[in-house]
Amino acid sequence: MTYCVGLMLDRGLLMMADTRTNAGLDNISTFRKLFTWDVPGERVLMMMTAGNLATTQAVVSLLDERTKAHEDRAPSILEVPSMFQAARLVADTLRDVIANHAEAGQRADSTFNATLILGGQIRGGPVRLFLIYPEGNFIEAGADTPFFQIGETKYGRPILVRAYDPDMSFERAVKLLLVSFDSTVKANLSVGPPFDLQLYETGTLKLGPKLRIAADAPYFQAISTGWGEALKTALDSLPDFDLTAES
Amino acid sequence: MTYCVGLMLDRGLLMMADTRTNAGLDNISTFRKLFTWDVPGERVLMMMTAGNLATTQAVVSLLDERTKAHEDRAPSILEVPSMFQAARLVADTLRDVIANHAEAGQRADSTFNATLILGGQIRGGPVRLFLIYPEGNFIEAGADTPFFQIGETKYGRPILVRAYDPDMSFERAVKLLLVSFDSTVKANLSVGPPFDLQLYETGTLKLGPKLRIAADAPYFQAISTGWGEALKTALDSLPDFDLTAES
Repeated sequence: MTYCVGLMLDRGLLMMADTRTNAGLDNISTFRKLFTWDVPGERVLMMMTAGNLATTQAVVSLLDERTKAHEDRAPSILEVPSMFQAARLVADTLRDVIANHAEAGQRADSTFNATLILGGQIRGGPVRLFLIYPEGNFIEAGADTPFFQIGETKYGRPILVRAYDPDMSFERAVKLLLVSFDSTVKANLSVGPPFDLQLYETGTLKLGPKLRIAADAPYFQAISTGWGEALKTALDSLPDFDLTAES
Repeated sequence: MTYCVGLMLDRGLLMMADTRTNAGLDNISTFRKLFTWDVPGERVLMMMTAGNLATTQAVVSLLDERTKAHEDRAPSILEVPSMFQAARLVADTLRDVIANHAEAGQRADSTFNATLILGGQIRGGPVRLFLIYPEGNFIEAGADTPFFQIGETKYGRPILVRAYDPDMSFERAVKLLLVSFDSTVKANLSVGPPFDLQLYETGTLKLGPKLRIAADAPYFQAISTGWGEALKTALDSLPDFDLTAES
């Protein structure tokens, strides 16, 4: 599986992805799932992938190649005029790759599905964040749903739902995401560090800091061990149930 | 779906189950999923159910009927000599019900599966807690895995993993379970209150308090609203990420 979160903040966008891939329990590898394209001063695009690795790698390679082959008649994500058109382009590419693999496959029940998160900003437009489905359609984040998760989303969702605040700083948002990722890693073998992190500050039109957080990184260790204690303290702060009274 | 947790404590057993059932999104009902049988001074059995409602109701009805028809050659859960034999009896009943439904069904892909949690104590033996699979086999909780969840288990798991302590009081354990249930309800439409709660104190061989906690119960409301704040405070207590330093 996989766990990726794209978070929309007042200050910008935050993307975090794990790096574990598995084909069965005994075939585990580390692959990057967070990709970026940019033309400084003009556009920034960030993408995260979940699902069949052959599919997502093909999508990324196709998108990459088109940015280099300018004579190609197909548009490039470095040329489309808006984030909406970028999402359409990525979605079409994803759908085509899945369709090709499914046709060529020997087994009808094979699944080549993948889901993507795409975010960024193109000059003249706002920051936008999309969730792209294997069917080639997509939805956009807004004020009501300011973040998207893909992959193994359930374990890490409650803390995001409760503690997310559009006004939060990047520093606090990274902490929130690491808690969400740590909760997932503690419960599910198919998600694992290192975690890739990419920031984008609204209006800058250039990529912000890009980091890889390892399992043994002191900060991640501090969050992972500290969160258990913090949760117990949080539980302490609520009143115990009174068994003698009907609730 | 469903969400049920059976928790083994030093003090005894705690069972909590939601009551929402659904066949599709537009066919929602409330059904009890927590059942008990007892012979005070001799045995206490508690069971929770997840899965196909027709299956689980049939299992409960069959177990019930056998406790009343003493001339029946099939054993009753009020007569088996140990918790292990009780688990075998329940598991066999479950497997038979599923097999019968599957045979009679017109569509081979219909699913009549269900999963059960069975806990309790029979005089002369220890308190035991089992997770029973639709295949008719089962596993038992121990010191390493002191609780079982069935149904929509992922949202509410991180807090259980982090804050469970075998030494905790019933009052605190009820609080912990309500936080776990509230986290699930907040994220998933297929789990909903009221929640049924059953306690059993080790060695007493009689059922402890049985409660139903409604959505508007003041204590549940206090937990539900208080937990969001408590989580934010917990997040505050950890250091923010330092973007200027490589982690």
